[in-house]
Amino acid sequence: MSYVARSGFRLTHLDAAGRARMVDVSDKPRTARMARARARVRLGRRLAKLVRETGAVAKGNVLETARLAGIQGAKQTAALIPLCHPLSLDLVQVEAAVVGDHVVIEAIARTRAATGVEMEAMIAAVVAALTVYDMCKAASKDITIEEVCLLEKRGGRSRHWRRKEPSRGRQG
Amino acid sequence: MSYVARSGFRLTHLDAAGRARMVDVSDKPRTARMARARARVRLGRRLAKLVRETGAVAKGNVLETARLAGIQGAKQTAALIPLCHPLSLDLVQVEAAVVGDHVVIEAIARTRAATGVEMEAMIAAVVAALTVYDMCKAASKDITIEEVCLLEKRGGRSRHWRRKEPSRGRQG
Amino acid sequence: MSYVARSGFRLTHLDAAGRARMVDVSDKPRTARMARARARVRLGRRLAKLVRETGAVAKGNVLETARLAGIQGAKQTAALIPLCHPLSLDLVQVEAAVVGDHVVIEAIARTRAATGVEMEAMIAAVVAALTVYDMCKAASKDITIEEVCLLEKRGGRSRHWRRKEPSRGRQG
Amino acid sequence: MSYVARSGFRLTHLDAAGRARMVDVSDKPRTARMARARARVRLGRRLAKLVRETGAVAKGNVLETARLAGIQGAKQTAALIPLCHPLSLDLVQVEAAVVGDHVVIEAIARTRAATGVEMEAMIAAVVAALTVYDMCKAASKDITIEEVCLLEKRGGRSRHWRRKEPSRGRQG
Amino acid sequence: MSYVARSGFRLTHLDAAGRARMVDVSDKPRTARMARARARVRLGRRLAKLVRETGAVAKGNVLETARLAGIQGAKQTAALIPLCHPLSLDLVQVEAAVVGDHVVIEAIARTRAATGVEMEAMIAAVVAALTVYDMCKAASKDITIEEVCLLEKRGGRSRHWRRKEPSRGRQG
Amino acid sequence: MSYVARSGFRLTHLDAAGRARMVDVSDKPRTARMARARARVRLGRRLAKLVRETGAVAKGNVLETARLAGIQGAKQTAALIPLCHPLSLDLVQVEAAVVGDHVVIEAIARTRAATGVEMEAMIAAVVAALTVYDMCKAASKDITIEEVCLLEKRGGRSRHWRRKEPSRGRQG
Repeated sequence: MSYVARSGFRLTHLDAAGRARMVDVSDKPRTARMARARARVRLGRRLAKLVRETGAVAKGNVLETARLAGIQGAKQTAALIPLCHPLSLDLVQVEAAVVGDHVVIEAIARTRAATGVEMEAMIAAVVAALTVYDMCKAASKDITIEEVCLLEKRGGRSRHWRRKEPSRGRQG
Repeated sequence: MSYVARSGFRLTHLDAAGRARMVDVSDKPRTARMARARARVRLGRRLAKLVRETGAVAKGNVLETARLAGIQGAKQTAALIPLCHPLSLDLVQVEAAVVGDHVVIEAIARTRAATGVEMEAMIAAVVAALTVYDMCKAASKDITIEEVCLLEKRGGRSRHWRRKEPSRGRQG
Repeated sequence: MSYVARSGFRLTHLDAAGRARMVDVSDKPRTARMARARARVRLGRRLAKLVRETGAVAKGNVLETARLAGIQGAKQTAALIPLCHPLSLDLVQVEAAVVGDHVVIEAIARTRAATGVEMEAMIAAVVAALTVYDMCKAASKDITIEEVCLLEKRGGRSRHWRRKEPSRGRQG
Repeated sequence: MSYVARSGFRLTHLDAAGRARMVDVSDKPRTARMARARARVRLGRRLAKLVRETGAVAKGNVLETARLAGIQGAKQTAALIPLCHPLSLDLVQVEAAVVGDHVVIEAIARTRAATGVEMEAMIAAVVAALTVYDMCKAASKDITIEEVCLLEKRGGRSRHWRRKEPSRGRQG
Repeated sequence: MSYVARSGFRLTHLDAAGRARMVDVSDKPRTARMARARARVRLGRRLAKLVRETGAVAKGNVLETARLAGIQGAKQTAALIPLCHPLSLDLVQVEAAVVGDHVVIEAIARTRAATGVEMEAMIAAVVAALTVYDMCKAASKDITIEEVCLLEKRGGRSRHWRRKEPSRGRQG
Repeated sequence: MSYVARSGFRLTHLDAAGRARMVDVSDKPRTARMARARARVRLGRRLAKLVRETGAVAKGNVLETARLAGIQGAKQTAALIPLCHPLSLDLVQVEAAVVGDHVVIEAIARTRAATGVEMEAMIAAVVAALTVYDMCKAASKDITIEEVCLLEKRGGRSRHWRRKEPSRGRQG
């Protein structure tokens, strides 16, 4: 029923006629699911230093604002991504740290549902990254979000998956 | 009144005490403003080929779904980015194309307002990119959003700015 | 730049390649605009009588709930209709009355903007109609929304337009 | 506890005093539920032909945009209809086709919840219909949504219900 | 794992480093939960009398509008309160009455979920109270929301809790 | 056209028949407008001390989270309060401080529009207060929002208004 190209890949969000569709999960059991995603924002050295400084300021800072925005953003996933299912969330957790001249963001989403929460984790990471961008953009227009990717996925049919990372050991 | 570090940079979204704040634009005139942003999603060769195929399918496809999601996403900018001002939009335009083994997305936002629309363009690009990711993720978990950045900005005090690109000539 | 078929019609929301797009209104002046729309919900005789009764109840009723839902719905227009521009509204007004065995809803939207408010008026009317449906559906599944249409449009290039109605004189 | 008129009908969304209320479903089991709804948009012959043409265009079209808007709209049901319960959705599916001089839209919603998804299906159908209207309204103001109605409902106490249709065989 | 001050209190929404976080409820069972909250709006005597009058008007009134707004507001809880979990709701019920020169609002929320619904009840009460404020503010600027508090909480680990009230017997 | 009771007060949000309505501002000029509101949350002494402590923690705290939630909440005003007009905002500013055993919140909203921003300021204050409540409620159920009121209003016909405060000098 899903679109299968000759190449052997399956695009589950397109039907046999190639039209976009939501995947029907009404026969899938509700199971515990987790996804973890990362976004990296290149600030440049001087700006990274400044964000690290503001991170030490007493009453709030770029990283905390970004973390909260990421949490809030994840709750809007179904409103943002057309073919995502609206679902309850058991956790959205966002960490943000200055690593070298980047801000590195990691987001985790958890649910007990019939479908995964990769997009919730990805959106949490991206919205946190964009919030860093927004708060720093007056200082430099060269800020770039260099990477948004899934790191880990647990639950559902495909079980546990972890991204194989090059052995640089970012962010521990 | 904004946070100025010894480094000389200015973080306009932090007040003198380092707390996050919205910039007060009540004294700024409403002028025509434009921003253009790009996101690039690396799909890998086989998947890129498949998306290019589905892009030829009669009644809808990954790229068109992504374009529409980007347009809709831009309208949620103020709800997603804590310190963004809610404003009217004169245009959100999103283009998406398969270039090599990437999907390249360009988004333009226009307004007549007291503040810029960089975030609207960035969010349009990112949400389109995440929609591509969502629709292709069943086929491969190695998909990565490799870049989200501002390309151009017009209007307001700082006037016209264009990103200097390496002479590779992506997407023409 | 818009899609013109051989039939001579113009679909302004498709570009020359047939792709959906938002119309660029950045060169249009902001002028006073109004639109008026109607929705008619057929309840059947007995149910219409009942709604008319509840309309006389002291502390709230189907029609008032529908009116408020219509007003709230109109504010979500840009979030619901992909190619609509987000804009400020000067007024959303919704009237609802039992006429024969129908509930007839009329909605008016007003703005000062670069684009019209037909969709705001249409959505106000439809959401009010669906709210009547929702509140009455336990009593009968045969309820049908029989008509949703624009009645009047003022402002912008095309100026004043009124629907020519058959001389039945619904709702005065 | 619900409002029962002398006519014998029951309006479950009004309490004994006639005030609007949400139905308490906290004692109902979560069961599989489905609802199917239809909306018909009369375009007129020439415009219907044009939409059918644009539906053949390679990279997007009126019908696909409408389908996606309907899916997105269904997720906003609880925000739009005052007395609807917010719930997770297992599927929203929207079909759209040009039939004669109409666009006919059918929407299906599925959930496992303590309450039905009629309104989700109805809103998906209506928002898709309004999107067709929005994209075609520059070509003609005579476009009318002629019908929005429930076609089928499964699950919950009342079990399976199908609308009896006159034997015209719309949309097959 | 949560923030415990020397004072012995526990702030579950701050992690060990004092950063805001959503509580992870992925190991908690989904159980029936209820919360009840109250808001009191002081209108002054003359205005309270007026609202009582409009409450007797046939087709709608301040209290009914406030009740509906409260119900709708509760559904937005997770979007408004950063660390709240998005969840399904089995009931939101809002009562509003003029008591002396106050409007007294009571809201109840019910769910079957892994976390409580205090915030849903509190937001329902507050949004209803603010709607009263909004509708009356042209008549007097001295209107004050004097109290928003939880009255009762049932379900979850801590079981049944009721606010001890001074024996004045407000609102019965 | 608005509802005038014999008592001489005017409820602008009810029409002559007593039905709720949005005020038509299409003839009002867009002028600079400001509103300032306050909410006070009584925490009790020990909890207030704890929040003061967390306010000194390096990477985020209750007050900063509340401030950000208040800013975000103000942008949802028109979605929450039925008869509010959707409008652009030039500023939302929220301050929060522990004063004695209370958290005192002050919010300012600014716009250039045809209608005031009292509700935006009130909602910013309330949502910040509820966020404090949410983050502290595990430590004590006796937390109460004791006051939400308008402090100042500038712009529009009625010009500058300030609440007369008893000479206690809260929050300086």
